[in-house]
Amino acid sequence: MDEPFKETEIKIAVLGGGTGSFVVLSSLKKYTSQIAAIVNMADDGGSSGVLRDQLGVLPPGDVRQCLVALSEVPKMRDLFNYRFEDGTFGGHSFGNILLTALEKVTGNFSEAIRTASDILRVRGIVIPGTLDNVRLKMTWKKQKYELLGENNIGSSKFLYSPKLAELTLDPNPVANPMALKAISEADMVVVAPGGIYTSVGPLLSIPGVGEALMASHAKKVYVVNLVTKIGQADGFSVIDHVNEIERMAGTNFLDYVLYNDQKPTRYQVKKYRAEGDHITRIKKGNLKNMHYKLVSGKLLGNIAIKKNEDNILPVTRSLIRHNEEALGTCLMNIYYDHKDTDF
Amino acid sequence: MDEPFKETEIKIAVLGGGTGSFVVLSSLKKYTSQIAAIVNMADDGGSSGVLRDQLGVLPPGDVRQCLVALSEVPKMRDLFNYRFEDGTFGGHSFGNILLTALEKVTGNFSEAIRTASDILRVRGIVIPGTLDNVRLKMTWKKQKYELLGENNIGSSKFLYSPKLAELTLDPNPVANPMALKAISEADMVVVAPGGIYTSVGPLLSIPGVGEALMASHAKKVYVVNLVTKIGQADGFSVIDHVNEIERMAGTNFLDYVLYNDQKPTRYQVKKYRAEGDHITRIKKGNLKNMHYKLVSGKLLGNIAIKKNEDNILPVTRSLIRHNEEALGTCLMNIYYDHKDTDF
Repeated sequence: MDEPFKETEIKIAVLGGGTGSFVVLSSLKKYTSQIAAIVNMADDGGSSGVLRDQLGVLPPGDVRQCLVALSEVPKMRDLFNYRFEDGTFGGHSFGNILLTALEKVTGNFSEAIRTASDILRVRGIVIPGTLDNVRLKMTWKKQKYELLGENNIGSSKFLYSPKLAELTLDPNPVANPMALKAISEADMVVVAPGGIYTSVGPLLSIPGVGEALMASHAKKVYVVNLVTKIGQADGFSVIDHVNEIERMAGTNFLDYVLYNDQKPTRYQVKKYRAEGDHITRIKKGNLKNMHYKLVSGKLLGNIAIKKNEDNILPVTRSLIRHNEEALGTCLMNIYYDHKDTDF
Repeated sequence: MDEPFKETEIKIAVLGGGTGSFVVLSSLKKYTSQIAAIVNMADDGGSSGVLRDQLGVLPPGDVRQCLVALSEVPKMRDLFNYRFEDGTFGGHSFGNILLTALEKVTGNFSEAIRTASDILRVRGIVIPGTLDNVRLKMTWKKQKYELLGENNIGSSKFLYSPKLAELTLDPNPVANPMALKAISEADMVVVAPGGIYTSVGPLLSIPGVGEALMASHAKKVYVVNLVTKIGQADGFSVIDHVNEIERMAGTNFLDYVLYNDQKPTRYQVKKYRAEGDHITRIKKGNLKNMHYKLVSGKLLGNIAIKKNEDNILPVTRSLIRHNEEALGTCLMNIYYDHKDTDF
């Protein structure tokens, strides 16, 4: 399997981490089987972090979510997402354990993903952004200060001026050639929503990814986060998101930016305010001379309930998610360019 | 899947635990695809014991070994047998974790085995002897003494007069109807080698199994253990083994007894003596008026090296195993009844 794409359908590359990519992949898979999910590999928290530390494997969690999104077998999706609650395996999802065992048996993470893809009957392909064992580093040069580790950065409740910080991977990784090839051959590239500094940014920071995006003839779309995460992207507007994404990639590669303009319900506002998050707003003042097209849609989905990682409280976190149906429609409208925009 | 057998090939039911059944199944699978492995479910040691205790599942270890034996995909066999060496999962084989997760997701161990069989592309079927959650009990009525738990019994270095003890399962289980059906419909039933009191016996002790064996029109063969295990079957002759096996089943069901008459090499003798084990001998004095036919063969295989369960010493135990090729030939000769015997 040396080719990311095989058929003559629309070829789409989706860049991101776990949850954001899951939503984008789910929204697109009814339109084409030629989807390449290119995955951030800097995750070092939760189950993935434990497996990295204890067994020296690459982080399986985000890859697992992408595999599940592209799987065609419901019972295998349930199995891969099954999270052990008790005992030795508490907190680990089965899919993470499978990818870990496969990497151990084959000695090769790409081979592990291929076998898992067979078991899950995945339509499309899941490609790690790099196959190097990397950790994320956020550096404030002037302050001579740095934060190490994606989980550490992501759990910070107050990130000091993130726009002034530089995001790098340590050691400096080699981009996965298959990832660059998928970007190059795609008809559309979608940058999924997700943590700017902890999910999408680390992937875009891999040397070569920005250049590949710039060089690709694909339509390049960024799906802006629905909410701004407390301490990470506080008060960021839609444009702030876009600017930071392009700064991470080191290039103004975007052709389209898709953001939500649906008003949340009072219940939704209450839910995410309780977590200190706020809906991402467009600020109409500064929307001139952009190299990309702004597109909006009614993209709010239901509040998703997420189980707590520590397995003590059954339900502790609610997440606002994109509406998959609406997201897929908007992305395909962008691809065919016969959309209604608010501008 | 309501039928243990489907095709018109020879139908063989193999009864036993993990290692012994693995060898018999491996030896037979080139002769027919219609193999039903009926598996002891009293295992409560090692990885299976931990999973039972921590997660309340049925013991997966012996089932896993039978699935792997019948699998057609080498890389999946490697995956299922992969045993984590380090970290939280140390000592657990991947297949055990898979069966556990599947049982949790589906709430049904038979369904778990079916899905695992699909992944492994198993030729044949693996059937738990019972689907009840049982523990083994060995009772000496006169002495008012009992030993609880298969692992506890099996690790005893001196079992007091085991021929006087009664083997039961607690709570009294219901036999898996599919297991009884397989025994009933088989053309040949093979009782695999394995611990009399800790592997084959517990399976034969399930109420209904002995009756099904007696009623079946199959040729019924017992493959006698190559060596007598220290403290368990000390000094047992071939006939002692057979007598105990039939006592466990509560019925004189055997038509054939297959035992090894190949002399071990000096190296082999040294290896198993170091563990206190001795080669099982036929005692020519008491071979009259038996209801079964004694058949011998040159059945010694190579010394197999087994990794230690505690994962500290890489190689600590050597096991004498049946030669799969020779075993298969002998069993098929018995089936077609044109064999040479030493008697």
